[in-house]
Order: sequence, then C-alpha cells, then structure tokens
Amino acid sequence: MTNDEPTPARTSRRAVIAGAATGAAALAVTAAAPSAAAAAPRAAAAVEGTAPGSDWQACLTVARAVLVRDGNDRDLVPRYREVLLGKGLPRTRGARKKVLVVGAGPAGLTAARLLHEAGHTVTVIEANGNRVGGRIKTFRAGGHEKSDPPFADPKQYAEAGAMRIPDSHPLVTGLMARLGLKTRRFHLVDVDGAGRPANRTWIHVNGVRVRRADYAARPQAVNRSFGVPAAHENTPASQIVREAFAPVRAEIEGKEGTALVEGWARVLQRYGHWSMYRYLTEAAELDERTIDLIGTVENMTSRLHLAFLHSFIGASLISPATSFFELPGGTATLADAMYAQVKGLVRLDRRATRITHGEHGVSVETVSEGRNGPVIRETFTGDRAIITVPFSGLRHIPVSPALSYGKRRAVTEVHYDAATKVLLEFSRRWWEFDEADWKRELEAVRPGLYDAYRLGRAPADGTLLGAHPSVPGGHVPPAQRVHYAACRAAARDQPEAARVIGGGSVTDNANRFMYQPSHPVEGSAGGVMLASYSWADDALKWDSLDDDERYPRTLGGVQDVYGQRVEVFYTGVGRTQSWMRDPYAYGEASVLLPGQHTELFPHVRTPEGPLHFAGCHTSVKPAWIEGALESAVRTALEVHGA
Amino acid sequence: MTNDEPTPARTSRRAVIAGAATGAAALAVTAAAPSAAAAAPRAAAAVEGTAPGSDWQACLTVARAVLVRDGNDRDLVPRYREVLLGKGLPRTRGARKKVLVVGAGPAGLTAARLLHEAGHTVTVIEANGNRVGGRIKTFRAGGHEKSDPPFADPKQYAEAGAMRIPDSHPLVTGLMARLGLKTRRFHLVDVDGAGRPANRTWIHVNGVRVRRADYAARPQAVNRSFGVPAAHENTPASQIVREAFAPVRAEIEGKEGTALVEGWARVLQRYGHWSMYRYLTEAAELDERTIDLIGTVENMTSRLHLAFLHSFIGASLISPATSFFELPGGTATLADAMYAQVKGLVRLDRRATRITHGEHGVSVETVSEGRNGPVIRETFTGDRAIITVPFSGLRHIPVSPALSYGKRRAVTEVHYDAATKVLLEFSRRWWEFDEADWKRELEAVRPGLYDAYRLGRAPADGTLLGAHPSVPGGHVPPAQRVHYAACRAAARDQPEAARVIGGGSVTDNANRFMYQPSHPVEGSAGGVMLASYSWADDALKWDSLDDDERYPRTLGGVQDVYGQRVEVFYTGVGRTQSWMRDPYAYGEASVLLPGQHTELFPHVRTPEGPLHFAGCHTSVKPAWIEGALESAVRTALEVHGA
Repeated sequence: MTNDEPTPARTSRRAVIAGAATGAAALAVTAAAPSAAAAAPRAAAAVEGTAPGSDWQACLTVARAVLVRDGNDRDLVPRYREVLLGKGLPRTRGARKKVLVVGAGPAGLTAARLLHEAGHTVTVIEANGNRVGGRIKTFRAGGHEKSDPPFADPKQYAEAGAMRIPDSHPLVTGLMARLGLKTRRFHLVDVDGAGRPANRTWIHVNGVRVRRADYAARPQAVNRSFGVPAAHENTPASQIVREAFAPVRAEIEGKEGTALVEGWARVLQRYGHWSMYRYLTEAAELDERTIDLIGTVENMTSRLHLAFLHSFIGASLISPATSFFELPGGTATLADAMYAQVKGLVRLDRRATRITHGEHGVSVETVSEGRNGPVIRETFTGDRAIITVPFSGLRHIPVSPALSYGKRRAVTEVHYDAATKVLLEFSRRWWEFDEADWKRELEAVRPGLYDAYRLGRAPADGTLLGAHPSVPGGHVPPAQRVHYAACRAAARDQPEAARVIGGGSVTDNANRFMYQPSHPVEGSAGGVMLASYSWADDALKWDSLDDDERYPRTLGGVQDVYGQRVEVFYTGVGRTQSWMRDPYAYGEASVLLPGQHTELFPHVRTPEGPLHFAGCHTSVKPAWIEGALESAVRTALEVHGA
Repeated sequence: MTNDEPTPARTSRRAVIAGAATGAAALAVTAAAPSAAAAAPRAAAAVEGTAPGSDWQACLTVARAVLVRDGNDRDLVPRYREVLLGKGLPRTRGARKKVLVVGAGPAGLTAARLLHEAGHTVTVIEANGNRVGGRIKTFRAGGHEKSDPPFADPKQYAEAGAMRIPDSHPLVTGLMARLGLKTRRFHLVDVDGAGRPANRTWIHVNGVRVRRADYAARPQAVNRSFGVPAAHENTPASQIVREAFAPVRAEIEGKEGTALVEGWARVLQRYGHWSMYRYLTEAAELDERTIDLIGTVENMTSRLHLAFLHSFIGASLISPATSFFELPGGTATLADAMYAQVKGLVRLDRRATRITHGEHGVSVETVSEGRNGPVIRETFTGDRAIITVPFSGLRHIPVSPALSYGKRRAVTEVHYDAATKVLLEFSRRWWEFDEADWKRELEAVRPGLYDAYRLGRAPADGTLLGAHPSVPGGHVPPAQRVHYAACRAAARDQPEAARVIGGGSVTDNANRFMYQPSHPVEGSAGGVMLASYSWADDALKWDSLDDDERYPRTLGGVQDVYGQRVEVFYTGVGRTQSWMRDPYAYGEASVLLPGQHTELFPHVRTPEGPLHFAGCHTSVKPAWIEGALESAVRTALEVHGA
C-alpha cells in the first residue's frame, strides 16, 4: 500500500517544503500505541523559507489553468474543441477500459459521452433520483420536482442555477451549436423594445433610487449617499472598479503566448494570497466608503474576504463587451441534450458513499436515498473513475487508501460559497409596463387604485396580493398575507413605471440583486422574476426562513425598488434554490479563499492512481459550464490515455 | 423625520471620512425620478487619506470594549456586578418607562429583569414558541422540542449551544451564584478517576493516532505527518500558536489601566484589518505545513480567513489556566432561572417583523409563526426598545425610519459564522472503559466479539449497531444501518481503550472535534457524546445531510478515532444543532471579518433614538453568555437613564 504522491509545484507566501511525501507515508501508520505512532517515518528533508523557483512553477501552473494552456504555453482550446465538437477522443491502441463517472452534471455527462464514443464501457453514477445536470437546473413543468408544475402558469419556468452563457466561452457555445440547440440573447443589461441596451433598471441604495443610465451620467447622488470622498463623487462604481484593477490588468493586457502566461503568473505570485478587501484597501488604496459603494453596486461586499483572484479572474475573462446567451425552455434543455446521448449509461438515485482504489481499479459504493422507498446499496467497479463530486461533498466520502496529502487538504479546505435565488411568479410582466399600462391594469382591479398606489394610500395589509383578475385563484396562502402585512416594506413612494425588458436592479436591501426575464414565455402573459440573487452571507440569511415568510419578504424587497403596486400581479407562487442547502451541491461553487489558488489548486486536478477529478472546481472557471467542459475533456483524455 | 446620526470614532486602513451624516441625510430622499435623486444633499466635507487621530480614537473605543472599560479607562465590571448581582439599577428621578425587549436570550431576560425591578414596565418579545434562552439550549426531556424525550434514555440530556462557562467570566459566574445554581467542573481536558488532568484523549490526523499527553511529550510523529520544517518538528501545536501570538501579546501583557487600553488599541490599529491567515504567514512567518498542523490540531483552519483579532482576543481572555463550569441538568437550567424571574413579562411565539421608531417611541410588529395554528399578528408599543436580535436576523426586519448609515452597514455586513453540533447517544459510557470492561461487555453481546473487533474481523455492515443488551430496542432506523454500511469508516484497526472522563479528541476527518461528557447523568449508565463539533465551512458540510445519513456518518468518524467497537452501544438516536440553520439565530455568533472590529464594531452598540442594542454581538465576547450579560447591564443602564 504505497501511495505515489504527486509532487505538484508548490507556492505561496507560506514557505515551501521540499518533498511532499510525508503525509502519505505517514498514512501507512495508524498506530494505537504512542510508541508505534512515534515510529511514523521521518519527514523528507524540509527546507525553510520561500523557494522562489518552486513558487514560480506553481504560479505558472495556475496561470496555465487560467488560460487553458499546456505546459509549453500552447492554447489547449483548439484541441479541446476538436475532441468535444469534432472527432472525439483520438484513436489509440490502448485497451478499452471500464470507467465509472461519479456525478451527472455537465462534466460527468460530457466525459461519459466522449469515453463511450471512444469505445470504453462507461457507467455514470448520479445521486439525484429525478434529474441530471448538477447546477444546471430549471424549475419547469415535467421537471420532476416535488411540486409539478412549479408555477401557477404551467408554461412558466425559471432558472435555479446556470442562467447565462457568455459568448466568450468557446466550448459551451460550440457544444450548444453541435447539439443543434436554439439560443437567444440573455440581457444582462435591460433593453428597449428594439433590443438596444437601455439601462433603465434601478439602483436603489441608501434611500436613493436612480436608473442605471442616469447613474452612469450623474453618479453624484448615489455616491454621496455613501459619503465617498470628493475624488470619487463623479465616477460611476463600475469605473472605480475598473480603475482599481487597472495596474493588475496591465500585467496581462495585450500579451500573448508565454508573455501572457508569465504575466498571469506574476499576478498570482503577487496577489494569490490577498483578499479582495486587502487589494482594495492596500493596493488600490480605496477608502471604506468607496469600497461600500462599489461593494454594494457591483456586488463585491459579500465576497470581500474571499480571494482577490476569484473576482479578478472573473472580471478578466468576461469583458464588459461580452454577450450572453440563454436557451429557450431553460438551461436544462442543454442538460437534456447531453443526457440524451448517454442516457443508457446513467444510474440515477445512486449517491456515492465510499471509494476504494488500488492496483485492481476502483470500486464505488452507493446508496439510493430511499426517498421513494427503502434505502438500498449498490457497488460499482471499474478500471478508472472520474470523480466530479464537488470537494465540499467529497469531504464526506471515505476514500481508501487515503488520498495524497495535498488532495486531502484541498478536499478539506477548498471554500464553497453560498448562493441563493428566490423566484417570484407574476401574472403580468409589469416591469415592461408604461404608466398607461399600469393605469389600465390597476383600474381593472378596482377604480381609483392607480392613484391610491401613487399617493401611498393603498392598503398594505396583504389584501391586494394577487388582486388582479389575471391572477389564478387559490395560490396565495393565508399565512403569506399575514407575513406580508407584518413585514411589509417601509417605503410607500411609487416610482415611475420601470419599462424594461431583461436586465436587473440592485438594492441594498436583503434582496440585493433582481433580474427580469429577457424574453416572454410563449403563450404566457406572465413572467417569473429572479427577485433576489445573493451570495455568501447575504444568501445564508435567506435560508432560515419558511417559504411562507420568504416569499412575502422577497416581494417586499421588490416593492422597495419598484413600488408597492407590483403586488397585484403576484400569483403567490415562489421557488427558492439555496445551493448551500442542496444535498448534493453543498454550495454554489468553489470560490477560493486567499492563498488557495496557489496552495490548493495545483492539487485539485491531479489524478490519484485510477482516480481522475473533473467538475468546474477543477478549472479556474468555477460555476461556469465552460469550466466543467474543460475538465470533462481533460479527464476523458487522461482516462483514454491518448 | 431627521435622524440624529451618532458619530462614533472611525478607523481602519480604509481612509477615514470626516462627517458620517451623509448616509442618513440621503435617506430622507427616496426619489423616483433621477432629477429628484440628483438633489440628494451634498456630502459633508470628505477628507481623503487616513486621519490618525480619528483612527486611534476608534481603536481606543474597541479596546475599551475588549476590556470592559469606560471612556476614562476605568473597569466597568465592578459596577456591572453591583447592578447585576447586588442593588440592581440605581435609583433615579427619571420617569418610569414602557420598555420592549426583543429576544429572550440571556441578554434580553437579564435586561428585562433589571428594568422590571427598577419599576419600568417591560414586555419581552420572543420568536420561539417553545423556549427561551437563545443560544443556551439543552436537548432534554420536557424541553418542549418536537421529539420528547430527545434521547432513548429520558434521563439523558446534552447541549445544543452554550456548554461551558469560564471561571474568568465574572458576570455569569456571579449570576449563577446569585441564582443559587449548582455548578460543577466542565473538563475541557479529560481527567482521570481522581479528577486530575490526564490528557488521554486522541489526536488522530494524517492516519496517525496519538494521545494528547504523548503528543505533548513527543510531537514528532504528528508534526512530521504534516511535513513541517525541522524547526517545528519538536514543538507541540499549542506552543507554536502561543509563540506565534507572543509578539502581539507583549503589547498587553503585564499592563494595567490606560497602558493596557492603549496596548490593545495598538494591536487593533496594527492588526484590525488582518485575517488569521495573513497574521500567521506574514507576521508569524509560518510555512503552510505548520499552519496546517496548528490549524488542524488547534481548530484554526476553518477560520483562517476571518479576523485575526477574533481568535486572538479569545485566546487572550481565556488563558490555558482557565477552568470551566457546567450546570447539572444542562445550561438551560440557567435560562430557566433567568426566565423564572420575568416569566410574566415574556410573550413567546412573537417574531419581530417590523420596527417603527420616532419621537413617540417604538412600535414592534410581530407574527406568531403559526406552527401550532394560523399565523397571527400583534403589535407592541413602548417608549424604548432593547433589540437583542442577532444582526444576521435584524437584516430581515424593516426599520422605519432607517437606521443610521453606520448601523445599517453593521447590520448588513457583520459576519455570522456557522457552527454545527452532532450528538450521539450511547447506552454505556464506553470512553471510560478499560480493556477489561470492553472484554466483558463485548462478550456479553456474543462470545468472541472482543477479539473479532481487535482483529478487524467484526462485520461492518451495520448489523452490530446497538447490538449490546443495554441498548433499548427500536431506535436504530433500518435506513441508518444501510447508510452506515455504505459509508463506514475505512480503518479497521482497534486502538486501546480510551479510558477518559470528559475532554475531547481531535481528528482531521469531517467530525473534527468530539467531546465526552464531564459527568455521568444520575441514574443512567449511558451518555451522550458531542460526536462532532465544527465551525464555518466544516459545519456547513454537515447541514445538507438527512438525519439518517448524518448520524451513521458521524458514528463512522468517531470509529475512525476510537475504533469500530463503540457501535454496539449506539442507541440509534442523535440530535443535531446547526446554528446557521436555526430560524432565529442565523449563525453561531458574530465572528468578525478582517477590518470589521474597527470599521463596524463602533457602530454596533450605539443607540439610535429610542432603540438600544444588546446581545453578545454587541460585546467583544461573541458566543459567550458573559458578553450577553455585559450588554444587558449596559442597555438597562442606558434605558434607565442613570
């Protein structure tokens, strides 16, 4: 039972230890008596202090992962595209293998398809009993969620997870085309009737409400409400962020090939152990009020203590010019299409509970979760396994013999962030209304109601929830009305009609970010709004509430921004996705802590004997389908042995 | 509707803004149209760059909070003790007031008692329908939890929350004495039969298992298993931590009065914006393997990204010489005794949902949670209110008019950490056994079983769960047996009998920390073990599991450390407390992020008009009853107007 310890390059401000084999070697000793424990093998020679060469190697390793380059700094994407979209895995003389894939998210489904097409025998083990797709998840009719259909209007659907696909992601956009999926634009910024960016959604902070376009032109009112220093009063938050990142961006901008890789490596070496908070205070030298401003408006506050690199990499790989796609019918149609190609290989309702590996190969023990009957066990065996389980979940899966020291650390310590979405269904897309629409529709509820809302005189006791004739009866539970009345929003002012298509507003209330759908659902006059999308601490605060409390509170947060009158279209139906509470996801994604990019990431993706590791957490694009696909191709190539 | 903005001293590396009134002023403007928004009042003169004087003032403010000193650096504890334990609030000529106290934890109950005794009219509003005490919570028979009794043996009880009271906390120890409560020692370190510290519990990391006493004497095997550099091989983890903190401790050690306050202020100024990770890497200059060692053994890993000050203050206020108390019958007996004094004033099942305040006083709207019937609303009014709700919960309570800018930021941003306890009941206190006890008891299950376990040959399929004749039948659900078999621990070796009373073991498996009860429960041969106590990311990973999965997995983690054979005494009954999932706690406690001590804490406790703020988060002893009591006396004095 010897463990060949991979020896990835190491780095970080933490001093570097030469010879990483000690942890695994010690694992051979499980000593009951102290005397036996004391016999644990002598550590390999340890070198104190930072070893710059080794440090630099690790930074290069992570830089290549950021850029998807091989060890010679060559772009891997063309090869990955060829495998994923064209010829599949290369022909080899290698033997056919029996491969287990743990997890039927986009990484697992794709790796399975590639290996299956190359002639290997593949079994995919999926914990969910009712769906595949991982963090691609659409609330939709027939989607096998507990409550079906999920919304009052059975035509409606909404995203619990992945909702937008950047055009700068070559693998996923190529895959959608290969699968013949129809796509359309996702409007991150709201558009007018002609599809042009309008920026009419609201910024609502410190009691100030202003449209985004007006904020961009005249940022003073919002900026002053944070008390920012005069030097920043006239600069929009997004520009302050861009300027704050500029010196770091200069390390990489305009560079190519090895110079680009080395530029990224310098960024990693310099800031890999910094939090965003530290970067903004010490490198960008911003004051706390300005950090509040950009944190609130640009969604940075809840992740200030996490790695600077996470947000910086995200901002660098997705430029302001990036366009986004969505899939009509929901992102789950992409998972459906992936699933269709490997359906016969997938075993649902099998949660991996124990992994044994060695010369003989791999065995994965599983349980059904017994939600539709008794819990049963099943064991699968193979020559190799691709583990796509998030490390937050892998932490609870005993692996025997133990994984290497570096991998164990990564499994234990890689930070997964919380993210929670609260969706509310409305019988009309009121955000597209102008004042004439509002007047007509509110008068249809009862004469004089339009003015009552404008003057702040409409009752706020919940009696008007879902009062519009278009709202189907019977969906607003009485408890929601009581909770609504008890915690209704404080403000009674009525802003002018939003008149937006798509896009989203930002608020400093607990909702934080809200998005309107980019397109109507065919045959439906209503729409489901992403009424709150929040991260980290902001998200966890939504998770403790009962549904009957959460939805009225979320509605109250929407009313803070758009006015009370939206309530008449509320159907009483909401849906919540807390990724931290999801029993198989254990978090939204691996959002690393300061230091983890350079200390842990090099260990995340290295194989361990017959075990290979895929999933977006093994890429530097956590939470993005692109990262999952990169990992699928990489591990399929590893297993295939090309 | 003007807000008198408190102007607490400000600080931090983020530059300081003179004049903090802008946020509140802007709140007066809720502008629908951009033109109106643009009319938000001009920010007060903003000064860029750090203003050292102001910074220093904030550091002094926090330092005084750490030390419980007044503005002249005089110790407030004697006065607080006099109020709490002796004469109560001072006589004044002030008018009797109608006071609302929101929350019936130790802070709320104590403030209510003091104000009631001083002649004020007090109403306490508590969200829980079945108990008071907040994060004092004991699983016990008759405790009004859903499942009663909570354990198979109705005599058994165990702590969901506060479990140990340091003798260095003068208010809570004084209060227990005043209330005539019997106390006894809580053994943080395991003791022998004569009550002497034995340090026989296990450290089980990287496959090495060693007793604490042996580790202290010969740390090499464990330290080498982490691959620490030679310089740290021979030093126990606790000593490495002490040495790492020594330069900072030198700023305060041996000082008194103003010199002590200024020492703390210097620590705050220097390290207030540092994470523990940064301190250990950059100030203590520890390498990453040594940080892994101390992080794993001394429970620092999961909080490395949080404020250095949180752990440093904790370590400074509780010396290694500190003794701890516990309460026979559970910590809830302290809450019972507090409750008994104010029972008539407390309204259970009233969750605060909205707070309105102004010249007229305060009104607090509430809902019942309707768990035993329909949701109903009730509104309470008073001249003043003491809000003890954790800020994580206050975030969801609309306050009108809005709180000051600084308070809003604190409510939004103060970090609350996760903590989860998993308790398992056993029919015998096997941790106290010697090998002879084990042999006798296992042979009573079936002849030869003692050796079968020693040789790793006992079946691991769950059939032996609760197999001992002392285990009452019918408590092990079939699903638990299946899950147990599917995810059983990898190791089959059997260490020697633990033979410990109290104390706890540490492991690098998902359980992390496990504690044995310090004392038997009278009339019971069994015991409830705190089988897993974890924080932050470690805790969140336990929260997604179903109970029938969580308990067998927790048992597996205990078996990793103590051997498989403990399973025969498992009754099948566990209890879990996730403080992050608690619907009223929203977290274990306010464990601040880097920068929050100096940027946010000065705003946490300042009154806002008729609103006063209590609870352990308003002290610098979050999660400790002492901090709650400090805040109770402080706010009672504020409201009383002495």
